[in-house]
Amino acid sequence: MMTKPSLPQGTRDFQPETLRKRSYIINTIKNQFELYGFAPLETPAMENIETLLGKYGDEGDKLIFKILNNGLDHPSKRESSGRAFQNILAGKNEKEITSRALRYDLTIPFARFVATNHQQLPMPFRRYQVQPVWRADRPQKGRYREFYQCDADIAGTTSLLADAELALLYRDVFRALNLQVSIRINNRKILAALSAMAAKNGATSNVITVIDKLDKIGIQAVKQELLENGIDEKTVIAIDSYLSISGNNRNKLDALKMFFREDNTGIEGIIEIEKILQLVTDEGTFVMDPTLARGLDYYTGTIYEVQAQGVKIGSIGGGGRYDDLTGLFGVKGIPGVGISFGIDRIYDVMEELKLFPDSLAVSTQVLFFNLGDDESRYAFGIMNECRKQGIAAELFYDKVKLDKQFKYADKKRIPFVAIIGSKEMESGECKIKELSTGEEVTIKTNQLYEFLNK
Amino acid sequence: MMTKPSLPQGTRDFQPETLRKRSYIINTIKNQFELYGFAPLETPAMENIETLLGKYGDEGDKLIFKILNNGLDHPSKRESSGRAFQNILAGKNEKEITSRALRYDLTIPFARFVATNHQQLPMPFRRYQVQPVWRADRPQKGRYREFYQCDADIAGTTSLLADAELALLYRDVFRALNLQVSIRINNRKILAALSAMAAKNGATSNVITVIDKLDKIGIQAVKQELLENGIDEKTVIAIDSYLSISGNNRNKLDALKMFFREDNTGIEGIIEIEKILQLVTDEGTFVMDPTLARGLDYYTGTIYEVQAQGVKIGSIGGGGRYDDLTGLFGVKGIPGVGISFGIDRIYDVMEELKLFPDSLAVSTQVLFFNLGDDESRYAFGIMNECRKQGIAAELFYDKVKLDKQFKYADKKRIPFVAIIGSKEMESGECKIKELSTGEEVTIKTNQLYEFLNK
Repeated sequence: MMTKPSLPQGTRDFQPETLRKRSYIINTIKNQFELYGFAPLETPAMENIETLLGKYGDEGDKLIFKILNNGLDHPSKRESSGRAFQNILAGKNEKEITSRALRYDLTIPFARFVATNHQQLPMPFRRYQVQPVWRADRPQKGRYREFYQCDADIAGTTSLLADAELALLYRDVFRALNLQVSIRINNRKILAALSAMAAKNGATSNVITVIDKLDKIGIQAVKQELLENGIDEKTVIAIDSYLSISGNNRNKLDALKMFFREDNTGIEGIIEIEKILQLVTDEGTFVMDPTLARGLDYYTGTIYEVQAQGVKIGSIGGGGRYDDLTGLFGVKGIPGVGISFGIDRIYDVMEELKLFPDSLAVSTQVLFFNLGDDESRYAFGIMNECRKQGIAAELFYDKVKLDKQFKYADKKRIPFVAIIGSKEMESGECKIKELSTGEEVTIKTNQLYEFLNK
Repeated sequence: MMTKPSLPQGTRDFQPETLRKRSYIINTIKNQFELYGFAPLETPAMENIETLLGKYGDEGDKLIFKILNNGLDHPSKRESSGRAFQNILAGKNEKEITSRALRYDLTIPFARFVATNHQQLPMPFRRYQVQPVWRADRPQKGRYREFYQCDADIAGTTSLLADAELALLYRDVFRALNLQVSIRINNRKILAALSAMAAKNGATSNVITVIDKLDKIGIQAVKQELLENGIDEKTVIAIDSYLSISGNNRNKLDALKMFFREDNTGIEGIIEIEKILQLVTDEGTFVMDPTLARGLDYYTGTIYEVQAQGVKIGSIGGGGRYDDLTGLFGVKGIPGVGISFGIDRIYDVMEELKLFPDSLAVSTQVLFFNLGDDESRYAFGIMNECRKQGIAAELFYDKVKLDKQFKYADKKRIPFVAIIGSKEMESGECKIKELSTGEEVTIKTNQLYEFLNK
């Protein structure tokens, strides 16, 4: 049987070089998560279908990958026409055909987990989770059907210390990755106050969705849309002045206080941001941004978004505070706050800015050439000693022409090759060639480990 | 809406404590893989269905989880009766209903990858892969529908150096895990010779499947089955003598040489094992075992199986050499050899023998108590300095009774709590309590980092 193999649309193999870079990003993030007291969690790829359906809106529901219940397409019952398969499905309702689905994000599985386990967990519960999710989206550049999400959430507190901490976590992760970023912060209460003001003055739908488009379509188009939304001109001018608030964080907060001076909800949001900014004290990295909206997510307080500097790419992280994590699963009273890292985009930015350490390209330090049966048996022992000393080493398996062995070292970016022929076996020596310089030295084999460990 | 959440049968959440132990196992293995020059690979969870079907036998095909093609159950078309869903499926053949499936193991995706990319890869190609796989098996103790596989394979060489190396890799991994094991080695050519002998003397089916049951049913039952298989009594006695071969590796190889003295295939297998044992020179860990069969897998040469010592549990690893990795995908001439680690069983063994380092239980080193708004703002800064110094630290978010904060520290196994009240704020000091001993000291906050780093 011969099948020309291919990959499902929107999925990827990760080859060694890419994977090492991805692991570098993920491990750097995990290290910071651990420093911040977050504990790891992993949930299964598949959830019961009722756990997922109805949580992501109609559009989301359509993008959930559903798994066929097992036994429905028993190969022995299959006919090439497919008719038998239809007969098997005939008379079954949906639940009998699919009762499980692939996870669509990490938040709902986390909510499901907390709803089930909150009585045993140390509360407030800080967890991080780095796992793939699946969405039946139309694949396009930068959008995949399988991709990793990387989330940190704190469940079970309304304390703004948590919100401040997550802002610092963003800062420390991107510092550790050596990536210049701007961390934008806003508060949904401020936007809610603005939205209420618009609603009072003719808005037929939530103005947050319009404001969310500002980056993409610009202020003129936003104003146009607001007018089309039924908002009176005076209010549109007010919203324009809101969106134009500028200066440093202090200036902006003062201007906002004036703007919302008679609105309790607005003032509450402003005070929350003030408290967070007092705790993080790092003007420059943290930017209070009244125009930040984060779509129509379930956020109710602080919202964050991270932009990389020096590249044109969307946000590489986002998150916020939500009032109710587990209510959907029948457990009330668990608020939370969480942030997310866009691994694929962080990867692209770091690639573009050449921020990956060179050392990631190298894994095997030395390749022992294969010069024949006796020589390779001898080299095999020395290679094993290298590994014992913590030096990643390989021996070429087959006695082939040297240029083929050189090519292999080159393809794997192995910096050193070790050549041991019968002469070297006798003298207890070893020829070492550094591939980048072409330099060659002959040393005693017992000095080899020290030489390579440098 | 209220749903009582539950997990699909045969799947698991991994909570922090378990996950830290699993990561310890996986990272220890990965470190050895890297020392041995293996490069990481990850393939997508879903493959095109034709990539997987027909590769695992009829039984395997039944256990593959298939994914419903998207759009078939558009929520807007759904009715509670499920009738509409049937109408959508009506008239569709199988391919229109499911064209993707979840990966069933890591070997077929690896074969698919090598078949597609072998011309770009450094060949021979050493890859490792640690990812979950899914099987619609009936769940039972120790058998899950989602579980991790952990494989290392070398594709593109017939050299026995590769077989020897994988034996050493097994040894070094289990050494690093501090786990006493016995690594059993045999060769399929020897079993093939035995099987041919039986076939010549009346066997109606492959005797390897019978021999494979030896551990479970014992020698008498095996002999009985061989007789029922149509093999004449003289040959059954010969097979019995084969299965009874004992002594050290040298004794066994000599006895086997006598047994197969006129059989080229058998002798070839024996010589291969001899060469491997010469290369690994570690009698005691590596046990030549003529009774090792490894079921009816696709192996054609060396086979391995690892048993943990001191516990009653099945094998915790297995593997072997195969002639043809990519033939199924139309690429001939790529032989290989690979080994696999049973993460779940290794976990169980290490748990039973208490081999996990105590340090895995601890992540956060110090919890700062929350004694009020001013105190917690002050402690927040000191906590951040801890993290900067590489010390995992937390501040309790809410000002609640101290015993609640103690309980939290206890549940998270945090070894130290730091108490900073108004008095300590004034004096620039900090009370530190070690929870395991109850000891309490008051130190200058600038000495805190050194104190905790010890």
